[in-house]
Amino acid sequence: MKLILISLGKPHDTHFKDGIQEFSNRLNKYFSSEWIIVAPPKNAAVLSVSEAKKTEAGLLMQHIQKDDFVVLLDERGKQFTSPLLANFIQQRANESCKRIVFIIGGAFGVDELIIKRANYTWSLSNLVFPHMMVRLILAEQLYRACTILRNEKYHHE
Amino acid sequence: MKLILISLGKPHDTHFKDGIQEFSNRLNKYFSSEWIIVAPPKNAAVLSVSEAKKTEAGLLMQHIQKDDFVVLLDERGKQFTSPLLANFIQQRANESCKRIVFIIGGAFGVDELIIKRANYTWSLSNLVFPHMMVRLILAEQLYRACTILRNEKYHHE
Repeated sequence: MKLILISLGKPHDTHFKDGIQEFSNRLNKYFSSEWIIVAPPKNAAVLSVSEAKKTEAGLLMQHIQKDDFVVLLDERGKQFTSPLLANFIQQRANESCKRIVFIIGGAFGVDELIIKRANYTWSLSNLVFPHMMVRLILAEQLYRACTILRNEKYHHE
Repeated sequence: MKLILISLGKPHDTHFKDGIQEFSNRLNKYFSSEWIIVAPPKNAAVLSVSEAKKTEAGLLMQHIQKDDFVVLLDERGKQFTSPLLANFIQQRANESCKRIVFIIGGAFGVDELIIKRANYTWSLSNLVFPHMMVRLILAEQLYRACTILRNEKYHHE
């Protein structure tokens, strides 16, 4: 099973790059994983929020395959505990899922097209985090989930 | 009003230092704020978890003053949304609170003494984050709260 982490926006920024890279590398030892950073449409400045979201949705969909299990990160989703996230990943593996695709949308959320395509919507917290921090948290939590599944020492209850 | 951020453990580590520093600097433009990093007891390795927590509690208490409003970051606490955190800080200011002290405990939680001293217990999320990431999230959320209180552009609903 492969984990695909798709994020709209700019490349990982200076303050977060090291951490994102560190946890992504660690994650890679458990599951083959890949970041896909999707640049926002170039004409985003002249588009309305809803037009921009539609264009972004088209760009995101280019990276989603028919059989992908899509997890959208969105405040309106349900929260996991870290052990429940681990179970969730294990369940996908048990179902012979080939790819879980995690999508981090833009600052104003994602278009209805992506919301409908998502198989699950996950809220990290009641707090709103900056986009780059969401990438860091996602990488760390996926790594943590792997250590939980292997009963390794990283995670304390 | 001053914001004191107390954390047990090592100095900010390489992967998170930049981000913690960045958001702490930004926060400082709104409230005078200060990190106090409390080194764990040197004999921690020979202590039981509960003994270590007791010793740590003593070290933490040295930095807490009688009139401080103490917020303990702990999974068993209540979650804030980012706007509610902003309100919470504003309320302390309205009550002429001189110092809000945020405490990040160790990997195994804190001693009963700190739990009892805390005026509020705040859970960041249902997820468990690594210690250094909690520092980063705390600094960022406090900065975010300030921008919310000033109606600045940083936070999107």
